[in-house]
Amino acid sequence: MSEGGVRALLFDIFGTCVDWRQGVIREVSAVARRKQIGVDAAAFADAWRANYQPSMERVRSGQRPWTILDDLHRETLEGLLPKFGLEGLSEEERADLNRAWHRLDPWPDVVEGLGRLKQRYIISPLSNGNVGLLAKMAKRAGLPWDLILSAETSRAYKPLAASYLNAVEMLGFAPAEVMMVAAHNNDLAAARSFGLRTAFVARPTEHGPKQTSDLTAADSWDVVAKDFRELAARMGV
Amino acid sequence: MSEGGVRALLFDIFGTCVDWRQGVIREVSAVARRKQIGVDAAAFADAWRANYQPSMERVRSGQRPWTILDDLHRETLEGLLPKFGLEGLSEEERADLNRAWHRLDPWPDVVEGLGRLKQRYIISPLSNGNVGLLAKMAKRAGLPWDLILSAETSRAYKPLAASYLNAVEMLGFAPAEVMMVAAHNNDLAAARSFGLRTAFVARPTEHGPKQTSDLTAADSWDVVAKDFRELAARMGV
Repeated sequence: MSEGGVRALLFDIFGTCVDWRQGVIREVSAVARRKQIGVDAAAFADAWRANYQPSMERVRSGQRPWTILDDLHRETLEGLLPKFGLEGLSEEERADLNRAWHRLDPWPDVVEGLGRLKQRYIISPLSNGNVGLLAKMAKRAGLPWDLILSAETSRAYKPLAASYLNAVEMLGFAPAEVMMVAAHNNDLAAARSFGLRTAFVARPTEHGPKQTSDLTAADSWDVVAKDFRELAARMGV
Repeated sequence: MSEGGVRALLFDIFGTCVDWRQGVIREVSAVARRKQIGVDAAAFADAWRANYQPSMERVRSGQRPWTILDDLHRETLEGLLPKFGLEGLSEEERADLNRAWHRLDPWPDVVEGLGRLKQRYIISPLSNGNVGLLAKMAKRAGLPWDLILSAETSRAYKPLAASYLNAVEMLGFAPAEVMMVAAHNNDLAAARSFGLRTAFVARPTEHGPKQTSDLTAADSWDVVAKDFRELAARMGV
């Protein structure tokens, strides 16, 4: 059985568990409507997310000290607002819009799948989101984590080795006892290279209707499932 | 209202949530019985715990590098076994006995009280126990944490400032929005000195029937409750 010996599952969050794009679209649309400003909400969401990897790369490379994702998001937001005609937002409105990332909805299979997996396994995020972001998201969305591990816990953004290996070490398990679950082949490739098991769940509309990346498993991951319900079944629960 | 503005509660674990003394007595009695060795199990439990503060103090003082509690427990255990006639335990039996600290039972009011508090607040341990220990304990005992914060998360044992303040910072709250819950007046005194709110719940048999310490609140803590059910009621849930 592919799942033999697994004791904990670690989940990527943005895209894998929650629909960040629709969530950000909803939140920026709401504030723009209140301000009576027209905004291309989908373009705004995509532009915000487009700065995700570059902003973390400056931390990963050592160009700047450890900075949590809430702060990286806020810096990107400040640059985007004038480009989208939203420079009139108050400090309070900016802070609240930045917390859109705390208020993302899960894909429809996630809460049920995690609830089933939790019966047998320790389940935790392993996300580049900071601990506070993940805790508040989980509380609102009903994600039933046993604990919350994050890039912040080890001060190393994925796909750096320390991000995966510190999480495994904190759990007190061997890498092969821990399975990384993600909708992104590159996250799984990193996890596998450090000895973890891997599960791929495609999220073909994470980037909207025209998505071209990560539509299928790019390698022979230990499990490939269409959603978290199938993942749970494959893991025997 | 004393609880006004609180958004998260942090719980001390050993003594406050779980009965470490009866748990260790049960586990050492079981292995001694299997080996047909007579052992003073209560004296063994007390001796193991007596080394808790001294072993952490060597880490706090910088005399030795960061070391998780599982490893400190194991070192103490190695010293105790010959004194109690248990030097014949195998490596596997020693490792398993060390995991007694992962298998402690909660006081009878804890699971209900935490379940009620979780409805309104973010609840987490803030323990000197390491993350893996706390995760496995929670899974077995049914402690419904939203996340797990630990001395290990900040690599600083309580009552060092970093232990409390890193936890507060990770949550993304102000210190006054976070309440420390403990059966130990010194834990609360430290938490208060760093700006956290405080709740005292007496555990008069933590150290057995002859306990003399921490029988009552030694200061005007924000909440003083007889158990977690009363704490929940005082916190409005």
